[in-house]
Amino acid sequence: MKQTKIAIIGAGGLTGKELVGLLAHHPHFQVVHITSNQVDGKHIREVFPDLSHLPDLRFQKHEATIPEDAHIVLATPNEVSLEKAPEFLMQGKKVIDLSGTFRLHDQNQFESAYKFKHTKFEWMDKVVFGLPELFREKIKNANFISNPGCFATSAILPIAILGNLRKKIQGPVIVDAKSGVSGAGGRTEEIKYAYTHVYENFRAYKVLSHQHEPEMEEYSFVGSDPKKIHFTPHLLPVYRGILATIYITFENPVDPKEVKEKIQSVAEKETFIRFYETPEEIEIRKVQNTNFLDIGFTTKGNTLVLVTALDNLVKGAAGQALQNLNLMFGYSETLGLVTI
Amino acid sequence: MKQTKIAIIGAGGLTGKELVGLLAHHPHFQVVHITSNQVDGKHIREVFPDLSHLPDLRFQKHEATIPEDAHIVLATPNEVSLEKAPEFLMQGKKVIDLSGTFRLHDQNQFESAYKFKHTKFEWMDKVVFGLPELFREKIKNANFISNPGCFATSAILPIAILGNLRKKIQGPVIVDAKSGVSGAGGRTEEIKYAYTHVYENFRAYKVLSHQHEPEMEEYSFVGSDPKKIHFTPHLLPVYRGILATIYITFENPVDPKEVKEKIQSVAEKETFIRFYETPEEIEIRKVQNTNFLDIGFTTKGNTLVLVTALDNLVKGAAGQALQNLNLMFGYSETLGLVTI
Amino acid sequence: MKQTKIAIIGAGGLTGKELVGLLAHHPHFQVVHITSNQVDGKHIREVFPDLSHLPDLRFQKHEATIPEDAHIVLATPNEVSLEKAPEFLMQGKKVIDLSGTFRLHDQNQFESAYKFKHTKFEWMDKVVFGLPELFREKIKNANFISNPGCFATSAILPIAILGNLRKKIQGPVIVDAKSGVSGAGGRTEEIKYAYTHVYENFRAYKVLSHQHEPEMEEYSFVGSDPKKIHFTPHLLPVYRGILATIYITFENPVDPKEVKEKIQSVAEKETFIRFYETPEEIEIRKVQNTNFLDIGFTTKGNTLVLVTALDNLVKGAAGQALQNLNLMFGYSETLGLVTI
Amino acid sequence: MKQTKIAIIGAGGLTGKELVGLLAHHPHFQVVHITSNQVDGKHIREVFPDLSHLPDLRFQKHEATIPEDAHIVLATPNEVSLEKAPEFLMQGKKVIDLSGTFRLHDQNQFESAYKFKHTKFEWMDKVVFGLPELFREKIKNANFISNPGCFATSAILPIAILGNLRKKIQGPVIVDAKSGVSGAGGRTEEIKYAYTHVYENFRAYKVLSHQHEPEMEEYSFVGSDPKKIHFTPHLLPVYRGILATIYITFENPVDPKEVKEKIQSVAEKETFIRFYETPEEIEIRKVQNTNFLDIGFTTKGNTLVLVTALDNLVKGAAGQALQNLNLMFGYSETLGLVTI
Repeated sequence: MKQTKIAIIGAGGLTGKELVGLLAHHPHFQVVHITSNQVDGKHIREVFPDLSHLPDLRFQKHEATIPEDAHIVLATPNEVSLEKAPEFLMQGKKVIDLSGTFRLHDQNQFESAYKFKHTKFEWMDKVVFGLPELFREKIKNANFISNPGCFATSAILPIAILGNLRKKIQGPVIVDAKSGVSGAGGRTEEIKYAYTHVYENFRAYKVLSHQHEPEMEEYSFVGSDPKKIHFTPHLLPVYRGILATIYITFENPVDPKEVKEKIQSVAEKETFIRFYETPEEIEIRKVQNTNFLDIGFTTKGNTLVLVTALDNLVKGAAGQALQNLNLMFGYSETLGLVTI
Repeated sequence: MKQTKIAIIGAGGLTGKELVGLLAHHPHFQVVHITSNQVDGKHIREVFPDLSHLPDLRFQKHEATIPEDAHIVLATPNEVSLEKAPEFLMQGKKVIDLSGTFRLHDQNQFESAYKFKHTKFEWMDKVVFGLPELFREKIKNANFISNPGCFATSAILPIAILGNLRKKIQGPVIVDAKSGVSGAGGRTEEIKYAYTHVYENFRAYKVLSHQHEPEMEEYSFVGSDPKKIHFTPHLLPVYRGILATIYITFENPVDPKEVKEKIQSVAEKETFIRFYETPEEIEIRKVQNTNFLDIGFTTKGNTLVLVTALDNLVKGAAGQALQNLNLMFGYSETLGLVTI
Repeated sequence: MKQTKIAIIGAGGLTGKELVGLLAHHPHFQVVHITSNQVDGKHIREVFPDLSHLPDLRFQKHEATIPEDAHIVLATPNEVSLEKAPEFLMQGKKVIDLSGTFRLHDQNQFESAYKFKHTKFEWMDKVVFGLPELFREKIKNANFISNPGCFATSAILPIAILGNLRKKIQGPVIVDAKSGVSGAGGRTEEIKYAYTHVYENFRAYKVLSHQHEPEMEEYSFVGSDPKKIHFTPHLLPVYRGILATIYITFENPVDPKEVKEKIQSVAEKETFIRFYETPEEIEIRKVQNTNFLDIGFTTKGNTLVLVTALDNLVKGAAGQALQNLNLMFGYSETLGLVTI
Repeated sequence: MKQTKIAIIGAGGLTGKELVGLLAHHPHFQVVHITSNQVDGKHIREVFPDLSHLPDLRFQKHEATIPEDAHIVLATPNEVSLEKAPEFLMQGKKVIDLSGTFRLHDQNQFESAYKFKHTKFEWMDKVVFGLPELFREKIKNANFISNPGCFATSAILPIAILGNLRKKIQGPVIVDAKSGVSGAGGRTEEIKYAYTHVYENFRAYKVLSHQHEPEMEEYSFVGSDPKKIHFTPHLLPVYRGILATIYITFENPVDPKEVKEKIQSVAEKETFIRFYETPEEIEIRKVQNTNFLDIGFTTKGNTLVLVTALDNLVKGAAGQALQNLNLMFGYSETLGLVTI
């Protein structure tokens, strides 16, 4: 029975759409309210005609009254989340925010990465980073979740898994990630996302200056010495999926057996982490439309190369949000998500 | 020696760019002036960094003074060509217009197809339709050329080639054409040309209502009874190229030998028309970046199916304009264009 | 409860894979046996690593013993279906054949279209053509279903819907269809399906000689005068989806209201047929991964243009097979298929 | 006048085709003989119908007699080059080998990278590595050139340019490169290059084990201390082009001004090296079908990130071979190649 009501603020984007689609099949969550200032008044199937199983709902303005017993997912730009998250929390609602607004605990770092002033920084004490494989217990008891970035998820989990090994990292960790267009500018009209600019093309963007870089640094090294991460995203002529190639150099030769044990032991107990014997087996096709994070690796001398892949709209956004929703409301974590 | 000076008005679009590229390699034409109201002031290599052999020129406003001894190519929107073509002609310049403004001799038909009032219709007596394979002699003596539409070229030539056969056509000719994105909305920021809307997608547009339909009807049947053409364009997830599948039903069984002879005899004397024995050999890859129009066919009972392909930016626009320029200025027609 | 057991013969291809995926989510069908001579011995998740919800099964040889109480889906080449379908039927099993072997009732036409001798033509009396929207009642009582071809489905249904209008068709019906690669040579190693041959390319194939042409002719005109269909398929640089543009010329002007009423009345009672007001709204993106057949149209004079789209692997193959399975076994026809 | 005769052995592949195309426009080189064991007997335009300006030649077997006064380009697999290069050199011909057979001076390293025994290692004393920007003077006097690998070119030049800076590199240099399909398996029928495996997909291959890795190590550090390079290639759903993201960590903070000066001073005197102010401006579209190597960079702390792009078939193969041919035969180095 659909007993838990959800309102999705900013449901007109690709991430919001993905979550609406996932929740339509979930046995317990009912989407009762969706907003979009751009397409308000339209029926959801007019905006997303390729989804046929969507609930019978119309988009409303962000400011429209929300059913009293609904909880909130924010799929809004940073500036909107900044205002809306505290507002809904103070009304006693549970909130998951998919924007980057409440991910960094260093205010200077935040303002430098996101280029705007954070006026609600007191809420950083209350928010939990919604990476279930790392923070499952905290998420269960949280009212306020900041859902991780898509690139960040592709890097934080594989690095965090390494455990004690992380202490012996030498120099910066290199995260070279490649993303499909839906991770970048899906529904925008900017010329840089025009077919003629993306097709038969490939380029880097925000080299060493992407806002997910400090997020990776903050959460990859929990419990160990902080390390530098240097992150470069690239734009693939592909619709969905991220593949990240992560280069870590240690002080001493790295033992492939030790790495394999660490990843494999996590993959065995985590439903959504899959381990492959060779890094060449990792491909975005295998994770598209799934909530999996696939990991493979190889080593040479002191260097470990991790290759990871995930679907930016699922494990990188809406699927991970659903894991978090399940945990927050006491449902089985994998409910509504396809598993092996 | 580069003795003939050319000004290109509206050189900031894909067609203008293609022509600038072709003329850069031509021994006699010198591009001396380029305009674009959108990027005026910029150097041509800033706007088109993928072209390295471009002349040393900056974009100017459309209204900037043009060197006195320069002739004109208009790669402008219809409304601009309507004003500019007569203006330059009255200054004694030769003009090639790549827009559709001066292609239709029936004013009502024009205004219905192009959705605006044609206030310079007196110039329709002076213009020559720039399809060299049909109107070569007239072009040689013309001061004012209307360059054919890309879709129109893919259909008019193969139908015109059929000669007397055309008299026995029964019912409408069906032209089902498929075009790459550069033929539709190359440099626009419209959401319908965003990567996420074109990639892994396919759709028809302007079904039986495209402005090239009357153009096909006017020029395909020169010297024979007028016939109806029903034209549907479709948008391919491809950068450049048009493939048209043309269905013609005759009153009686069609003789493949007669069709073959007609096409082959034209292909033998026309440099830019290539004939293939089977329609399955026609593919857009073979014509991309060339000025060729490839033609193949098959028959069944009373029906003839022609399959044709061309590059919308070359034979469908800038390459054909260069054929016309060569003819107008007394140079060899194929100069500056790659030939077999 | 999964009470009905299914064996899929030839499950290693794209169609078999799609059906395995659909049945994994179905409440009543249990896939108990899968075969593939190419990958026999392998676990299903080794072969299809992008599907995570697959049942725990290994591929066996075609000749392996099949559980006694299992019914059969044949996703095999024509030559294999020819032998296997009668064999299983004589064992008392229900059979759905996805190949073209049992679709045509004229043996000469079959052998000319499929280029091999049909040695089991006596079974053509017993087979039912599995297009539920046309033959629902017969399917419910059938033991032997021939599942329609993907292109055929995209044309037969919209033409059949026209009803009495079909009697006044003049000349051949033109079906100009465009298909993604998965409809053509998905898992083959032929060079013509290599990336470098399909990407940034477009071509026609089997012009007026595709084996679905006689299938369209046989089933589009049930209950009315037979008419000719001229069919040309084309290969899109797209993974899945078919869009067909169908040109029908009548003896007299065609009344758009009449056409609209016919299509709309069918769309209203058929779950998987959707009607759109304009043909430009039809796009393959809207039907990908769904069992819908979308239809739009326009008219001009005596001519009607229908534009249709479907997913070749779903409504064009595995989804339609599931509709048929549901009907044959007394379940709700739409069970296991996403609906509005 | 076409006074220098060239025979291309192995002209049936994408690299050979590219070179035939370039030489067709060159004023002094005449291709007089082409071989391919796969398509011998066919006319060159049958094999490459998309090239219209090809010379009037038929493919012959590799063993066919070669015109006495012709010099040789080998676009053959390693095993063929191993036999053919010495054979032709002993006949007094000049030879450019595009394979990897004569690039590495450490025989163990060669045999480990290329997986076969090098039986002609004595020729390693006579061969010159054909990277004109580094070894121009040696190339002018050489009879035997080993043309660099495509990935290797994208990394060696930008690293070599850094000059003294290279001495202070700490840890391995990371080269993370992404290549279009023509750089990998253009004309092969392997299933991994099928459209359905490359499209909407992305993956790494030969992680830290590609044969260009030792080539990068050998030539990037000429004149300075040897350093380790860790190289990962990836396969893009793109036809042509390579983009490499190169991460170099130094012992101390790197000075962007010093890096800029080094690159800019080389770019100013080298026709085919272009410098861009920001790494985000580098894109494969800008170098496709050109002989340019584009370079941009950024720095952070001790780390320098270089982003480079080239066309794998031009600067990465045939275009660079033409630079070398021009130098070897005393023509202007840029002849037949488009320049700014």
